[in-house]
Amino acid sequence: MSTPSIHGIIGYTITPFTSNGEDIELDALGRSIDRLISGGVHAIAPLGSTGEGAYLSDTEWDQVAEFSISHVAKRVPTIVSVSDLTSANAVRRARFAEAHGADAVMVLPSSYWKLSEQEILQHYQTIGDSISLPIMLYNNPAVSGTDMPVELILRIFDTVENVTMVKESTGDIQRMHKMHLLGEGRVPFYNGCNPLALEAFAAGAVGWCTAAPNLIADLNGALYRAILDNELGSARELFYKQLPLLDFILKGGLPATIKAGLRMTGLEAGDPRLPVSALSEDACLELRALLAKLL
Amino acid sequence: MSTPSIHGIIGYTITPFTSNGEDIELDALGRSIDRLISGGVHAIAPLGSTGEGAYLSDTEWDQVAEFSISHVAKRVPTIVSVSDLTSANAVRRARFAEAHGADAVMVLPSSYWKLSEQEILQHYQTIGDSISLPIMLYNNPAVSGTDMPVELILRIFDTVENVTMVKESTGDIQRMHKMHLLGEGRVPFYNGCNPLALEAFAAGAVGWCTAAPNLIADLNGALYRAILDNELGSARELFYKQLPLLDFILKGGLPATIKAGLRMTGLEAGDPRLPVSALSEDACLELRALLAKLL
Amino acid sequence: MSTPSIHGIIGYTITPFTSNGEDIELDALGRSIDRLISGGVHAIAPLGSTGEGAYLSDTEWDQVAEFSISHVAKRVPTIVSVSDLTSANAVRRARFAEAHGADAVMVLPSSYWKLSEQEILQHYQTIGDSISLPIMLYNNPAVSGTDMPVELILRIFDTVENVTMVKESTGDIQRMHKMHLLGEGRVPFYNGCNPLALEAFAAGAVGWCTAAPNLIADLNGALYRAILDNELGSARELFYKQLPLLDFILKGGLPATIKAGLRMTGLEAGDPRLPVSALSEDACLELRALLAKLL
Amino acid sequence: MSTPSIHGIIGYTITPFTSNGEDIELDALGRSIDRLISGGVHAIAPLGSTGEGAYLSDTEWDQVAEFSISHVAKRVPTIVSVSDLTSANAVRRARFAEAHGADAVMVLPSSYWKLSEQEILQHYQTIGDSISLPIMLYNNPAVSGTDMPVELILRIFDTVENVTMVKESTGDIQRMHKMHLLGEGRVPFYNGCNPLALEAFAAGAVGWCTAAPNLIADLNGALYRAILDNELGSARELFYKQLPLLDFILKGGLPATIKAGLRMTGLEAGDPRLPVSALSEDACLELRALLAKLL
Repeated sequence: MSTPSIHGIIGYTITPFTSNGEDIELDALGRSIDRLISGGVHAIAPLGSTGEGAYLSDTEWDQVAEFSISHVAKRVPTIVSVSDLTSANAVRRARFAEAHGADAVMVLPSSYWKLSEQEILQHYQTIGDSISLPIMLYNNPAVSGTDMPVELILRIFDTVENVTMVKESTGDIQRMHKMHLLGEGRVPFYNGCNPLALEAFAAGAVGWCTAAPNLIADLNGALYRAILDNELGSARELFYKQLPLLDFILKGGLPATIKAGLRMTGLEAGDPRLPVSALSEDACLELRALLAKLL
Repeated sequence: MSTPSIHGIIGYTITPFTSNGEDIELDALGRSIDRLISGGVHAIAPLGSTGEGAYLSDTEWDQVAEFSISHVAKRVPTIVSVSDLTSANAVRRARFAEAHGADAVMVLPSSYWKLSEQEILQHYQTIGDSISLPIMLYNNPAVSGTDMPVELILRIFDTVENVTMVKESTGDIQRMHKMHLLGEGRVPFYNGCNPLALEAFAAGAVGWCTAAPNLIADLNGALYRAILDNELGSARELFYKQLPLLDFILKGGLPATIKAGLRMTGLEAGDPRLPVSALSEDACLELRALLAKLL
Repeated sequence: MSTPSIHGIIGYTITPFTSNGEDIELDALGRSIDRLISGGVHAIAPLGSTGEGAYLSDTEWDQVAEFSISHVAKRVPTIVSVSDLTSANAVRRARFAEAHGADAVMVLPSSYWKLSEQEILQHYQTIGDSISLPIMLYNNPAVSGTDMPVELILRIFDTVENVTMVKESTGDIQRMHKMHLLGEGRVPFYNGCNPLALEAFAAGAVGWCTAAPNLIADLNGALYRAILDNELGSARELFYKQLPLLDFILKGGLPATIKAGLRMTGLEAGDPRLPVSALSEDACLELRALLAKLL
Repeated sequence: MSTPSIHGIIGYTITPFTSNGEDIELDALGRSIDRLISGGVHAIAPLGSTGEGAYLSDTEWDQVAEFSISHVAKRVPTIVSVSDLTSANAVRRARFAEAHGADAVMVLPSSYWKLSEQEILQHYQTIGDSISLPIMLYNNPAVSGTDMPVELILRIFDTVENVTMVKESTGDIQRMHKMHLLGEGRVPFYNGCNPLALEAFAAGAVGWCTAAPNLIADLNGALYRAILDNELGSARELFYKQLPLLDFILKGGLPATIKAGLRMTGLEAGDPRLPVSALSEDACLELRALLAKLL
């Protein structure tokens, strides 16, 4: 299967709620998408970890998926996260995304009961068989509870025809080396761990999956261009400049920190759904100071 | 708040599905409950980890909760697991359980984004404020992704009036010692790690939360009675006799192993929901051999 | 090989230094041995972790080994720790201990470079071949950096004729269960993790290797007798009574805490060798309070 | 204190033994040093982990230190690892190295009993006070059992005047970022984890501490030059070319793999001291194949 050219900065959207957390504010979602695109991201990814996809009802999930795809309107590719605990609902979401015009889907093997390697492979196969879109396999044990070793990832890549991209978020750069060596350079890998942005590009990542462009799209893009230009020195400088913010948004939880940052920069998107809390006042002060240095 | 006398063997139910995994078989659920009660369990706990509560739609969850409470019919206390990712839905489930006659609810702090201690406390407080039932706090990082240290558990116990019981499933017996020492003996704790059954009772646990009575209720009960009788020697013997089965059902995943074991012993309850797979043929042979030694 | 009857409370000695840490005070060592024996321990183990064996020169090590064996004078069995980084020196020490009348030796697979299972087995075989004494295999990854899984321990037990005892200090009680089940009850195992004293005995440990009898030999012995008498209730009570002290000496480092406790109870044994520091003043106050409750 | 200009490729020497492992072959050591220097390394480091410093008697250690310093003869700086379990012996070794002309010493906080942060700081202070040479602090929890967090390293760097360099071998690239950010760029850091060579340089490491130049000095040097030339593309290519060998020597244990590789390339240096074994035949075949691709 030929992959659409997904590369560079892949911007993850938040899901805006009304002030009581009950309803979704599609208007704010639209504005946040426009902001990402005008900031220069090379693709848009709704309903990921940042997008609180796991905290939405099915009805809400469908609403956000449909609106996001339609609002991006092919200005850049749209990659919809369709992960769910059951294979049946992940398939339903993948088909929904395809039917509404997504360019690719992303799948994290969410789990409650630990999955065996065979169960994980079967999960990807089932979803892959149900759609014609390319799939970005997503490894993020910190949120999913499932850590896929490189060997398993390559087995899935080689078995499920439309798994054509790998997003690695373990924070272990050696996974990317191993992917490159064992995969003999065939596997396009993407970095999902913000504080590894520089190293992942150094190791050959073709893209950076990140919520940071909601706040500092220019800096994210500049780092990517320095890499394309083979300019290690300025890439390092750009990286260290934005690293304190990258560390902060990861440590504070992306929905809480990005929503707080959007509010500070004029885009009201509400707070995360409880029990995930809004950013504390102290942390807001810290974020404001970090942003002041960069904007 | 006075706790109902919940102690001894607390039997966890599976949730039976039809062969395609789409529908729930209430009749089989009823028979499994009857079997547990006639096996001598001291309480029944539906919709826990074994009960695949996390894999059900809200409608299905309500159906299973209502049926279970009604079918137990106060023969023993019923403890309903009401955990959910959002505080809002956990509250809804807790109220539903109370309205339908549950004796207690159990709450695991499920998470996708890691929760701070304050967020966890607030989650318990919110649920506690919404009902009058006693709450069993449940610590099981392997499935929830959230590990509550003993100090936090005690803080919740001391803050949220109706959190009156603690179920510990980390597999670290020293947590129970610490609970006893720091809690000055005030905190009734329950063991949720099958292979620690003997040690937890030795350490003073008042109950054992387990799916094993679906298969070997007699042996589970005999171990508990040996402890009550202060008979360490026979408790050790009874423990080592059932340990291979306890290890097996934990390692193989409770829904898959218990459902396979029920099928072997004449109660068809279907298979787990995908991507969690039915027990493999080889594992079934092993389970059959283990059961043959015990039944 | 028939094992001498090593069971019950195995008391570990400290190695007393002069106030500048340069020389060894054999007189104080003799008095500490007498105190342990009059406290009722069933065996004496010099030069273990508590005895700072790793911090001694070869000359000093020989001096302490010879003196300890001679001073115990067969009142109880003596088990000498002969561990060293190189197989050659561990062999030298084992032969020295045997030549001077030790009843058994203990071997921890100390490491700098991680050892493979084959290297560990070979190390035990080499030492075993060099002496006729029984060997207590010692697993304590926290100090040795090498964790031997139960399967490896059993392989060594079955391969090296004079490895006849296993001391487990990982703090994971399930290792003992596994030793019992996989070893089909043939392997005498000893507990080296103080806070697991109750559970290890419940699981069937034949002895408790501990430095605690330097301070509270009566309580240690009473717990063991309650177990022999099958009295779970009073064993639990005795265990919880001494647990705060057991936790304290483990957390504070055995050489520092035991030497401070000996000083408080009238036996000056100096301080540990730097960089391991003497117990801080605050910690001394805490230890004094803990002892006051027990003595 | 001004640091000598230690940067680039810092080559670690092995310690050659006679075939029975009993004696040291100084002649082979001299030839291995010459080979490293003619291969272009920017400094030589004897008696490190690769040099089996921990497995030598004091007499042997002195012999190797004296010979190495004298044989390097200031052609490049010599950094002698003086680590030992006791502060007293580490001080003795540091003074010995200084007296014999070392340019710097390296100190790993070796431990048997876990050290507190205060104990570690005091250990460095004691050694620092005893010599006038610059000290390279070395963090390698996999061999030392002690993991120094970045905050502690900075505290030592700011407190002990002659600690002027930091070698990081945890394998976690984010430690280097943190060192750079918290240290405000003042702390020269060196990479001690071979498979992170590319990323560490990308992150700003001033040197790479490695035993690899014993076998592939040209490739190691070429990677460093590509970094100095700001050529990310060719640095990445050079890195992936040598990575399989870097992974292999780390995984197989440096003394065993480097000694086997030296033998294959015409320099007989014996085998490691038992219980560390010589490289197996299968592993030798693998190493030979890896080298054949590179030499």
